[in-house]
Amino acid sequence: MSSTPPTDAVTAALLIIGDEILSGRTQDANLSYLADWLGTRGIRLREVRVVPDDQTRIVEAVNALRGAYDYIFTTGGIGPTHDDITADAIAVAFGVEIEHNKDALAVLEDHYQKGEINDARRRMARMPVGAVLIDNPVSRAPGFQIGNVFVLAGIPRVNRAMLDSLSDRLVGGPPMLTRSVGAEVAEGAIAQRLGEIQQTYPGVSIGSYPYYQAESYGVTLVLRAVDSAEIDAAFAEVLDMIKQAGVQPTLDPSNLV
Amino acid sequence: MSSTPPTDAVTAALLIIGDEILSGRTQDANLSYLADWLGTRGIRLREVRVVPDDQTRIVEAVNALRGAYDYIFTTGGIGPTHDDITADAIAVAFGVEIEHNKDALAVLEDHYQKGEINDARRRMARMPVGAVLIDNPVSRAPGFQIGNVFVLAGIPRVNRAMLDSLSDRLVGGPPMLTRSVGAEVAEGAIAQRLGEIQQTYPGVSIGSYPYYQAESYGVTLVLRAVDSAEIDAAFAEVLDMIKQAGVQPTLDPSNLV
Repeated sequence: MSSTPPTDAVTAALLIIGDEILSGRTQDANLSYLADWLGTRGIRLREVRVVPDDQTRIVEAVNALRGAYDYIFTTGGIGPTHDDITADAIAVAFGVEIEHNKDALAVLEDHYQKGEINDARRRMARMPVGAVLIDNPVSRAPGFQIGNVFVLAGIPRVNRAMLDSLSDRLVGGPPMLTRSVGAEVAEGAIAQRLGEIQQTYPGVSIGSYPYYQAESYGVTLVLRAVDSAEIDAAFAEVLDMIKQAGVQPTLDPSNLV
Repeated sequence: MSSTPPTDAVTAALLIIGDEILSGRTQDANLSYLADWLGTRGIRLREVRVVPDDQTRIVEAVNALRGAYDYIFTTGGIGPTHDDITADAIAVAFGVEIEHNKDALAVLEDHYQKGEINDARRRMARMPVGAVLIDNPVSRAPGFQIGNVFVLAGIPRVNRAMLDSLSDRLVGGPPMLTRSVGAEVAEGAIAQRLGEIQQTYPGVSIGSYPYYQAESYGVTLVLRAVDSAEIDAAFAEVLDMIKQAGVQPTLDPSNLV
């Protein structure tokens, strides 16, 4: 009954590169932003991997993901220091040479004062042959695209600016619609009926997310679908289910994603 | 020169299961906590994957990870609703039957009032044959361990309580030592010398993390190693490098991870 079979969906994966994420030092701030940003463009984030600054591991992940999804985004490892090895790893993954990209060099030479540019900074222009720049209006050193892989900075402000720069290159599918409702009811008390509603509407993905707070507990139900008639019908049944459980549904726009 | 070759390190991977993470609705809060928690026990988180509520994808990820790392942790998908499919997927990954675990049923029957227990709640006792419970002092429904895979709740408060419950089952390696320092200097100005220091101390992992703030920019340098003499020697050279760049090192304990 799904009006858009999964094979028609435009999909994406995110590869987060960096020891600092795996050590716990840095909390990733790009995943949820990218997921939301893609969602509004009709592209579904379907997998995320986090790997260390290790060429073999990056190559392996890039090649596993770029064959499985329409678009791949990487974050991290494109600065001037020894631990910035993303560009080299991407070149290896694609089986192409790495070079000092002329357009990237021109951007860097324009940005830095005479004498400021050095070998380390020129390193930020190293890109696989065939790479197309992604503009970085924040700190200038560009990201790049090769094939279906977009190589972005990990710093959130730069990451987001680069997404805006590349937005025109993406072709999305139909946007995902969502409906969300909260209820102060135990998840286990509605689980059976909710499963029945899910069975009735296979084109709607129904998620159930319990929460425990100091003074209360309850559940947030999130419906996602492409077809507006189908999501509205399923949502009406969910609201009815909550009322039959003896509580009032909480329609909180802040829950809408 | 590394006193602990990578093959001796005790390693772990995290598999985050849930459409709500991939849609951007929920920001993961377990990764950095787990990374830090494992680090203090001498266990290195080396990979993270996020997959949707899809049995094939969970099975594939569990089997890829459990052969590659010493310990695997999963979060999410162990509640009473139709989208909680982690236990079934883990059973498939291990090629064993799934059953209502007697110990888990006893926990749930003890917790709920008579009449409150229903099929959906009994579902939370469904576990692969051979599973060993992980106590959940917060909301009672237990997690479980099978082989080297620890199956935990996604709700952060429950997740952390379960980690405390299973802590005794883990055997870590030597703890990772860290040193951290900030400097108001452009990353590109120190990159070359930093790379030389990294070459001199292959047993020390040196990470360089730039930041941009409204009034300033700079870099945080993080050193990680098992050998205390080696990390201290490398750190002394890093501090000297910063001073030679004409700025004062900022020793901020809040940066220590």
